[in-house]
Amino acid sequence: MKEEKTLIEMISEGEMPAGLEVACSKEPISVSDVAREITEGSAVFPLNKIRSIEKPCVIGKGLRTKVNANIGTSLARTDLNLELSKLEAAIDAGADTVMDLSTGGDLRLIRRRIIEKSSVPVGTVPIYEAAIVAQEKHGSIVAMTEDEMFEAIEGHAEDGVDFVTVHCGVTMKALEALEKTGRIADIVSRGGAFLAGWILYNQRENPLYENFDRLLDIARRYELVLSLGDGFRPGAVADATDSAQIAELVTIGTLVKRARDASVQVMVEGPGHIPLDQVEENIKIAKEICRGAPFYVLGPIVTDVAPGYDHIVGSIGGALAALSGADFLCYVTPREHLGLPDVEDVREGVIVTRIAAHAGDVAKNPSFFRKWDDNMSKARKALLWEEQMRLALDERKARSILESCGIMEDSSCSMCGEYCAMKFIASYLKTEKGRC
Amino acid sequence: MKEEKTLIEMISEGEMPAGLEVACSKEPISVSDVAREITEGSAVFPLNKIRSIEKPCVIGKGLRTKVNANIGTSLARTDLNLELSKLEAAIDAGADTVMDLSTGGDLRLIRRRIIEKSSVPVGTVPIYEAAIVAQEKHGSIVAMTEDEMFEAIEGHAEDGVDFVTVHCGVTMKALEALEKTGRIADIVSRGGAFLAGWILYNQRENPLYENFDRLLDIARRYELVLSLGDGFRPGAVADATDSAQIAELVTIGTLVKRARDASVQVMVEGPGHIPLDQVEENIKIAKEICRGAPFYVLGPIVTDVAPGYDHIVGSIGGALAALSGADFLCYVTPREHLGLPDVEDVREGVIVTRIAAHAGDVAKNPSFFRKWDDNMSKARKALLWEEQMRLALDERKARSILESCGIMEDSSCSMCGEYCAMKFIASYLKTEKGRC
Repeated sequence: MKEEKTLIEMISEGEMPAGLEVACSKEPISVSDVAREITEGSAVFPLNKIRSIEKPCVIGKGLRTKVNANIGTSLARTDLNLELSKLEAAIDAGADTVMDLSTGGDLRLIRRRIIEKSSVPVGTVPIYEAAIVAQEKHGSIVAMTEDEMFEAIEGHAEDGVDFVTVHCGVTMKALEALEKTGRIADIVSRGGAFLAGWILYNQRENPLYENFDRLLDIARRYELVLSLGDGFRPGAVADATDSAQIAELVTIGTLVKRARDASVQVMVEGPGHIPLDQVEENIKIAKEICRGAPFYVLGPIVTDVAPGYDHIVGSIGGALAALSGADFLCYVTPREHLGLPDVEDVREGVIVTRIAAHAGDVAKNPSFFRKWDDNMSKARKALLWEEQMRLALDERKARSILESCGIMEDSSCSMCGEYCAMKFIASYLKTEKGRC
Repeated sequence: MKEEKTLIEMISEGEMPAGLEVACSKEPISVSDVAREITEGSAVFPLNKIRSIEKPCVIGKGLRTKVNANIGTSLARTDLNLELSKLEAAIDAGADTVMDLSTGGDLRLIRRRIIEKSSVPVGTVPIYEAAIVAQEKHGSIVAMTEDEMFEAIEGHAEDGVDFVTVHCGVTMKALEALEKTGRIADIVSRGGAFLAGWILYNQRENPLYENFDRLLDIARRYELVLSLGDGFRPGAVADATDSAQIAELVTIGTLVKRARDASVQVMVEGPGHIPLDQVEENIKIAKEICRGAPFYVLGPIVTDVAPGYDHIVGSIGGALAALSGADFLCYVTPREHLGLPDVEDVREGVIVTRIAAHAGDVAKNPSFFRKWDDNMSKARKALLWEEQMRLALDERKARSILESCGIMEDSSCSMCGEYCAMKFIASYLKTEKGRC
């Protein structure tokens, strides 16, 4: 059977993949520059070969920082309709991608419905399903067979999943580093924990690492983007940037090279709980070791003490990560560390993560991304409230606050009233360009 | 009349000021080290000579990053009791200081009641009152007399105010720089706007600059800490770090020197709207030019596009500012740019700003500040929910979310349920130190 070309091979031969032009329409670089970044591995275009979607996106170098929202059931909450509502809320709030992390109910049905309904790329973590199947079939997660791992991944690809997290860097060697280092929170990645437990129990190397070529083969067939997961991401700021985390990253770096050699699109996942002063170095070392592959961070969470506010804690870390070169931010919701998010948490999580992403983008590329801010500031200076509302990142919330304040168009706000600085100085300052 | 000694003079002569020991009880450096920082001008102890309070604090080098909450009436909302409720909410949420920025109602009565009720240092911006009095008495803010400006400041000191914002750096020269530069938002500081308008209208230099010695004399008599306000702080990210802002900062630097020569405690106020990549340089240049004086920032706001979420935008900037050396963060509430905050906004503003401050502190001084995070992470790893709640920065919110999730002590949360990574790996990993 003649093998079909991958996206990277197509572009290298001068073909333009369907959807790429749409995906690049609001980006600071041209579609041909984006195409070059994809062939060089600095950007990925997550879109399963069997799927076409309304809102495709490209993730990587020189592009707008993207935002992912995790949704999905758990054993205790298996309501498909609730997850579809979260999907809608996430996309409505501006998520660029969603990940279905379901672990309860009919996993395949849920996944298929989410893929069917999603206008944005969908990612998954197939090892969850493999582990759950193993638990049901063999009575234990660590009894999962190698075939079951790969079959789960292939099953997701068949269903149309656009990118999968695969914890290929969880190896015996990295585990050794973890055991030597000692951590407060050990392993907090579910996929990482399942594989680490599997390795320790079976005293065998991680099949996703050992048989990485089998993964590359699936990825080629479906144009599945591999997102190399950080199974040893720190789950406490005390555990950040330790030898276990870096050992895994070094392995991931070698796999990035192998994926590129196979013309498979690949990105790399990063931490996690990281103190603020280590965020930049974490992004830079990951970019260096992983040869500029798009970097996808979870948070980072810069302090452990604020349950209920981890969306904000994550947006602090995420903004600095975006500034430092992270390409893709996974949201964190207010319910992180406490429970499964509801629809409103999903919405809030997407909005604050978009704020973080935009704060990074404005700083990195003001000539492209600051127009929005400048238009808002001009409207603010001119006391044009309708225009400010129209430009607000979350118009719904801004408008509800504004309405509660009862501000009239052209009037100053209830904070300063008659003593509005901008209004007052307008009558004296020669530079005045506003209209009030 | 023999002049009384100032705090700096007392400490230099070996006396320990009342309250300083209490103020230092939860700081990483000893009271004698704090005392030295105060004499060197790297820290301030805001406490009016006529006042004693339950929760004094020191602000500056090597110390926990402090958080201020602005409260106060406006013309449209003059309810004293509402402001006292905000005061209570701010202190209850952990604000280290409050500022009464009232501009409506009986200003002196409101101020006195706030001072009377406040267990933390109270700051004000006396030029607001001077401007309002001038408006009432002379029909125009710019008709304000020099004496009225200084009398307002002295009146606040007499009432027991601990620190005052004085916009001494708003000079003819800085205004010239502002007019040449051109800005989107011109001047957004109210005090800055009043003084700039006054200078332009009267074609006279700012009396607070020209007669800075008169200000020093008041400060000496009441041990009033001068907070040198940034009247030209940028109000749009496009306006950040421009020549107007820096011209004012240079003037402020010379005044810091004069205050120190007079043994008057002084701190410096900073921006404002600043893109993320300019936050660190803004802190560093201010510290350099102002000879290490404590630096007090408002935000910084790192993007203009998120009205309704400016507390979060400010916490992103504030965390990076704290990491970069800012000593004191003024909170921003969700209502910033839209209206006067209500009680819940005040609470939310304080909490998120405390998160930003702590994120900076944990990164700057982990050996002291990370214990809290480590204890939280240990409780998290051991699934000890009661302990996590007790340690939560905002216990009330964390508990309300936890209760809505119905988690039992020792159980994993509703996100992962049976598939809890931490619980799962505990049975396989040799390093396991948790109890589950």
